[in-house]
Amino acid sequence: MARRVVIIGGGAAGIGAAGAAKAAAPSTEVIVYTQFEDVGYSPCGIPYVHGKEIPDFSALFLADKQAYADAGIDVRYETTARSFDPAARTVEIEGEGEVGYDALVVATGFDYKPPGVPGEELGGLYYVKNIRRAMEWDKILDSVRHAVVLEASPLGLEMVTALAHRGIDTHVIDPHPWALGELCDPDTVAPVQESWAEMGVTMHWDTKLQAFLGDQRGHVRAVMSSAGELPAELVVVATHKVANNALAVAAGLRTGSTGGLVVDDHMSTSAPHVWAAGDVCEIPHGLGGLPLQGLTGSHAYAQGKVAGTNAAGGDRAYEPVYVPWGMVAGAWMIGGAALGEVAATALGIPFVIGKATGISRARYYPGVRPVTVKLLAQPGTLRLIGAQLVGGEGIKERADFLALAIKKGITLHDLAAMENVYSPPIGALNEPIVTAAQAGVAS
Amino acid sequence: MARRVVIIGGGAAGIGAAGAAKAAAPSTEVIVYTQFEDVGYSPCGIPYVHGKEIPDFSALFLADKQAYADAGIDVRYETTARSFDPAARTVEIEGEGEVGYDALVVATGFDYKPPGVPGEELGGLYYVKNIRRAMEWDKILDSVRHAVVLEASPLGLEMVTALAHRGIDTHVIDPHPWALGELCDPDTVAPVQESWAEMGVTMHWDTKLQAFLGDQRGHVRAVMSSAGELPAELVVVATHKVANNALAVAAGLRTGSTGGLVVDDHMSTSAPHVWAAGDVCEIPHGLGGLPLQGLTGSHAYAQGKVAGTNAAGGDRAYEPVYVPWGMVAGAWMIGGAALGEVAATALGIPFVIGKATGISRARYYPGVRPVTVKLLAQPGTLRLIGAQLVGGEGIKERADFLALAIKKGITLHDLAAMENVYSPPIGALNEPIVTAAQAGVAS
Repeated sequence: MARRVVIIGGGAAGIGAAGAAKAAAPSTEVIVYTQFEDVGYSPCGIPYVHGKEIPDFSALFLADKQAYADAGIDVRYETTARSFDPAARTVEIEGEGEVGYDALVVATGFDYKPPGVPGEELGGLYYVKNIRRAMEWDKILDSVRHAVVLEASPLGLEMVTALAHRGIDTHVIDPHPWALGELCDPDTVAPVQESWAEMGVTMHWDTKLQAFLGDQRGHVRAVMSSAGELPAELVVVATHKVANNALAVAAGLRTGSTGGLVVDDHMSTSAPHVWAAGDVCEIPHGLGGLPLQGLTGSHAYAQGKVAGTNAAGGDRAYEPVYVPWGMVAGAWMIGGAALGEVAATALGIPFVIGKATGISRARYYPGVRPVTVKLLAQPGTLRLIGAQLVGGEGIKERADFLALAIKKGITLHDLAAMENVYSPPIGALNEPIVTAAQAGVAS
Repeated sequence: MARRVVIIGGGAAGIGAAGAAKAAAPSTEVIVYTQFEDVGYSPCGIPYVHGKEIPDFSALFLADKQAYADAGIDVRYETTARSFDPAARTVEIEGEGEVGYDALVVATGFDYKPPGVPGEELGGLYYVKNIRRAMEWDKILDSVRHAVVLEASPLGLEMVTALAHRGIDTHVIDPHPWALGELCDPDTVAPVQESWAEMGVTMHWDTKLQAFLGDQRGHVRAVMSSAGELPAELVVVATHKVANNALAVAAGLRTGSTGGLVVDDHMSTSAPHVWAAGDVCEIPHGLGGLPLQGLTGSHAYAQGKVAGTNAAGGDRAYEPVYVPWGMVAGAWMIGGAALGEVAATALGIPFVIGKATGISRARYYPGVRPVTVKLLAQPGTLRLIGAQLVGGEGIKERADFLALAIKKGITLHDLAAMENVYSPPIGALNEPIVTAAQAGVAS
């Protein structure tokens, strides 16, 4: 009989696992259970439809249901897994009963951390996740005049920008002293905040949420915070993503300090024949091994491929992460890799800094934008340990590069002597990474 | 008495040397002799003014003459150095006589390789170099209807694109079987050639120049080639750049197989107290040490800084090059680093290939463009030895990255496991470099 791999979750990790399991052993029976109506779409695109950068939601679907069926992946839509039993190798599916497996992949993803204040039951609180709900919310946005975004997380940054693009009076409240407080240094994110101010966004930093206030219909009318009462017909709850680990915890799987499932380098959980991938797990950071949870869709997909391959009998490893990140926020792109100054300081890791602002094209070429690079390196060796970037072009590519540079032990000396392309429409005489590294070497 | 550094040449290498000499030892007397009316402008921008991407030539000036004077750099404009004598440490300057130096930097740059056919004396032959002449040519372009670009060199690619943008009927003739034949693989440059065809450019490959044909006024009226007679009121001579080494050769300096001056890792020539930088030198390739001449403005500037520092008594080294390159040509960006398939084959260097076409943003995000990455690696170790790129965004940043990756011994295994930023407006789920590396590992 064919080996059966059951996957709980139809997001990037689950779908990555399904495809990889089939690729590793085509005879494998692969079943994916998802609570939602769809798989194979890009939830990361939702803020950009709301912001009208993308004309409609249909663009976000990458493959139709038939494509998965044709690939031999049996997706069971709108189906809830109630529990699983690693000893018996069974999953209890609502309406379907007990389903046996040879290997299980837990890809149950994340939940937004509950705000934990009165009024959570009111209408008008938007948790961005499911595309069908997003389509409904998008219609509602047409009549929204005042919105509050709760926390300037990565999603929060995208949603603030989208709502402002949409002409909605947007306020953001966040307990940190600046946007992306957990990831980003204040100087890196400052241009984003300036551009938000120009777009009419009102920011409330160091601000504590106290309650959602409702009207007689049970719909939110305002947010009460330590900065006062903010009128809002819509609240986007963009709090920290926490591991959706309830099913796994009930089955006795081990979780770590983040609440994410502990996995080994093969994405194997503490239970036999059970793998995990994506936001439900925690992954060691490449610098020091501190566990990280709630990475990107790209990480989830790559982890899914590793988990799915191994679940189907293959042998693939997943390496510790250095977390290149990047996004568009306000009028800028921001990004980075591994440690920022704030994170390194909080962790007690010593560092020297090289920082420079350069340009993305020749100074005189239309479309030229500034690019600021801040590099953190180990004192003495000048081995790179982190980077923060903000600018107008090429932030993603530089973040990818710098994350690999950190992983491979590249130093500020290496970067200071680096060659670069100079061609007026695409690159300036001096690459900003090189200039920043030279500043760091000279400091 | 202050140490005197004399620099012959006011291009990127010479100006880089002047600034670095002052920075290394502010008391140094720095004199730059240039044949031209200006320094401190970007000749690389000239094709883009011709193509109307940049509104006018004044944008190309980076600093005015007073700025150099204020920096303590004594630039002598429209001045010709006739000879120099390393034993006596003197330069013979036309109209100025003998000038002594403590250290000399030769930064005499390049010449276009003479076409070597009848009719070279005709009017209408344009050698792109000096900005004042470019201003005059730009006015002439308004009345040009038919142009021939001689050789699809890097400058040739830019000029073909510029003339086509300007609505001029443009033909390119080249002895190689495809554009950028010395640098680029045919599959890399194919999209460029397709876009030229769509722009109305006529290409003549494997075609030998035979003569320039003139009218009664002594002005070119056609180009005779192995592909027949091509009418042209303008010929852009974009032949290979050769080292402008006459002065240095007359002074007894050693040249290498390329005709470039041989320098050590401090940019020191074979003569005592004489350094060199830029297109007049040859530099060892990082893979195998083959000498290269005629690199980019960015290389010239960096070499100038090394030569100038050392000429002023400092101690800086210049490392072998891996040559990231990139440009816009037709509707595309192309680029690469170190070896392409054609170059590796010609050199007898064995390789395996990983190639993939990905995308620059999420598939559904406006402005998304394809990005094709071809990676060459050493068989067995899979150590990266070259890359070729063509696409719509992020080619320069990837080329910079891959050149450093080659230098640092990074392998296809490293790149296949690389993390990448995923954010719809700036990066796709799968980075094309990673996909190409995975294809190479699997092959």
